[in-house]
Amino acid sequence: MRAAAEPAQLDRMFFALADFHRRGMIDRLSRGPASVSDLAGPLGIALPSAVKHLAVLERGGLVASEKVGRVRTYRVEPRALDTMETWVARRKKLLNAQFDRLEAYLASQANKSSRR
Amino acid sequence: MRAAAEPAQLDRMFFALADFHRRGMIDRLSRGPASVSDLAGPLGIALPSAVKHLAVLERGGLVASEKVGRVRTYRVEPRALDTMETWVARRKKLLNAQFDRLEAYLASQANKSSRR
Repeated sequence: MRAAAEPAQLDRMFFALADFHRRGMIDRLSRGPASVSDLAGPLGIALPSAVKHLAVLERGGLVASEKVGRVRTYRVEPRALDTMETWVARRKKLLNAQFDRLEAYLASQANKSSRR
Repeated sequence: MRAAAEPAQLDRMFFALADFHRRGMIDRLSRGPASVSDLAGPLGIALPSAVKHLAVLERGGLVASEKVGRVRTYRVEPRALDTMETWVARRKKLLNAQFDRLEAYLASQANKSSRR
């Protein structure tokens, strides 16, 4: 059983994803590690802006970086995607259980009225 | 195939989730529909604050509401959870393909060196 992420960490994770360019960076990095300039160019954003977006993604636990020589390379942190997947799956499970109960209730009501 | 959500809609969805109380509301609503006061009480927040949080969730497409008589009832919008699930699944798939390629590459290098 995976330990639940801390609330403050989830806040930072979801906040980091609430931006088109930052989601674009996750898309690019899901295909392979990249440097800041690899990321900034195709997204049409300036380097300083890309650096800021990457810092937000790093605080959100969504990317990790490593500096080799003069180049810092970024990659997606798979655990963040797992955390999100677990979060959604839990709510979907509860919601489906809710629909199942409603369905069972409606079926029982239909049975009652057909027996009258 | 489900149509991809619009970027602005994804911004609002992820932003809405970047808050502990709003995620608490989603948790509660995943168990069944509820009114503002049902939601505010257990979360220990004032009604006006709960109303604001619910408006953010509604703009994010995560909850829908219906007014019956004087009471407005909120429920989770399952499509939002589906959208999030699809978003994560796509990135995980790309990431796993990336790991598979790396693994294949490393295996091929290991074969080369064992043949030397």
